[in-house]
Amino acid sequence: MKIGILGYGNLGRGVELAVKENPDVELVAVFTRRNPDTVKIQTPNVPVVSADKAADWIDKIDVMILCGGSATDLPVQTPEFAKMFNVIDSFDTHAKIPAHFEKVDAAAKSSNHVAIISVGWDPGLFSLVRAYSNAILPRGKDYTFWGKGVSQGHSDALRRISGVKDAKQYTIPIEAALEAVRSGSNPDLTTRQKHLRECFVVLEEGADAAAVEREIKTMPNYFADYDTTVHFISEEELQKNHSGLAHGGFVLRSGKTGENHNHVIEFSLKLDSNPEFTTSVLVAYARAAFRLNGEGKSGCMTVFDIPPAYLSNKSAAELRAHLL
Amino acid sequence: MKIGILGYGNLGRGVELAVKENPDVELVAVFTRRNPDTVKIQTPNVPVVSADKAADWIDKIDVMILCGGSATDLPVQTPEFAKMFNVIDSFDTHAKIPAHFEKVDAAAKSSNHVAIISVGWDPGLFSLVRAYSNAILPRGKDYTFWGKGVSQGHSDALRRISGVKDAKQYTIPIEAALEAVRSGSNPDLTTRQKHLRECFVVLEEGADAAAVEREIKTMPNYFADYDTTVHFISEEELQKNHSGLAHGGFVLRSGKTGENHNHVIEFSLKLDSNPEFTTSVLVAYARAAFRLNGEGKSGCMTVFDIPPAYLSNKSAAELRAHLL
Repeated sequence: MKIGILGYGNLGRGVELAVKENPDVELVAVFTRRNPDTVKIQTPNVPVVSADKAADWIDKIDVMILCGGSATDLPVQTPEFAKMFNVIDSFDTHAKIPAHFEKVDAAAKSSNHVAIISVGWDPGLFSLVRAYSNAILPRGKDYTFWGKGVSQGHSDALRRISGVKDAKQYTIPIEAALEAVRSGSNPDLTTRQKHLRECFVVLEEGADAAAVEREIKTMPNYFADYDTTVHFISEEELQKNHSGLAHGGFVLRSGKTGENHNHVIEFSLKLDSNPEFTTSVLVAYARAAFRLNGEGKSGCMTVFDIPPAYLSNKSAAELRAHLL
Repeated sequence: MKIGILGYGNLGRGVELAVKENPDVELVAVFTRRNPDTVKIQTPNVPVVSADKAADWIDKIDVMILCGGSATDLPVQTPEFAKMFNVIDSFDTHAKIPAHFEKVDAAAKSSNHVAIISVGWDPGLFSLVRAYSNAILPRGKDYTFWGKGVSQGHSDALRRISGVKDAKQYTIPIEAALEAVRSGSNPDLTTRQKHLRECFVVLEEGADAAAVEREIKTMPNYFADYDTTVHFISEEELQKNHSGLAHGGFVLRSGKTGENHNHVIEFSLKLDSNPEFTTSVLVAYARAAFRLNGEGKSGCMTVFDIPPAYLSNKSAAELRAHLL
């Protein structure tokens, strides 16, 4: 399977690494909106090409993995590239998924390609666990916890505050809430009971720390509904101790059958590198897109539509013999 | 969807309960090899029918859920009933799955039915986690832990010992081994390091407790490779404290990407009733079998072949909007 990468940031580099773990997958080109001469990739003999020239590669690429952001890149890129290639994206703005799906579906169907959207771990693997466990335990309750890990959106919110030079925000699940869910008591949990928010902030020179802290802790949606701690640190300390990309989280469903039998399904991820894990998922679904398109399928799909066997490079008989 | 149940033991009763949780599913008959007059079920106005008369129900049942055992029932029943109905079974003799698959596939294909075999939690959900996580993290290691719960096979082994009147055996995962896996250290674990075996034994009058204990602890395959504890208790105590059907377990995959980034995927179940949970899975896959057959598919399948959306009674659009 020959793949292309569109966008060479954290995700693009992650796809490049994931390709090396999969002997049936070959990286043939990286596409960028920057000047290709300024982009240096890690794989020898693979060209970096201007995104404008993607149409020249239609016959040379089986699946294009789109590594842009959900805010402005993917809403445009996924429908556009689905007209030329089978595509995978990690669109993660949950509320806008239905609209994104419709646009991508029309583009992919018109050109007989397969597009799989919202691939990764949430949306993605966490969604799968929710779907399987809701089908199995209709009478129950879902819980999702994120972290411990850096939230990009919350870190961005911190950086928009006047007087803040740089910042990182960790989302931290509260152990007592997790334990309450695991006990099978089906608790009703408030936003505050589920997650803590911990902020590491570098101030501009002369900024008023107390005012910044007050503004953070009272910021609606982002911090006001949480127990939030704020640490003021130096720029060096932020670089040294808070540049990691670790993340993770938990999905649980607690449900009942019969008279009063409780069952708890729990799935969790503990990831040293959020982008490297996310892109490992993208590459597995690229394999599925390629196969499904080879069988004549087209249109937009999500993880809900893909038989698990299509992600694997093992045959159905091997999977049955060794993993069932 | 109209379903039939073949075999009215713990699993048959579990399917009957699971049907009540699914408004789109209707139980139309229970089939038994016993005298139907002696089998009393919990659902009013549903007939109990001799298994010999199943052929009379071919047009009245969309999916037959086979609730027999893997040792002698299912190897015969699944191919036989796949000639008449779409069928689901929970065949769990891992080593014999490939042979079972071939026989069932031939029967189902010859009659244009869908058969989904080895459905439940292991094989079943645990297999799914292994398949997804192997595809995502090719460079890694799988770990499966069972329990705490009663192992039927090990309890049977205890009961075959001369001097033993009745017995139950609990399989217990060792927390230190689980923690070692969760740490990402990819440990090599011996059989003894992964699980404990705890036995509750009722002796026949006059039996030699020391001799029984010695025979248990040295029994090859079943107990010799484990740290095994044996408690001698009264028949009343066994009935009162060890009749539960709770079970559960853990599947983990720990794998690396890039330079040295480790990722741990963990899935666990904590079940008050093993048969009620297993049959909740069977009913969800019955829905998939019915739909796939409605689309013209036939043959034998496993959980690896089924798109997750087929298990749900929600539409694809609802799943995308609410669970993705």
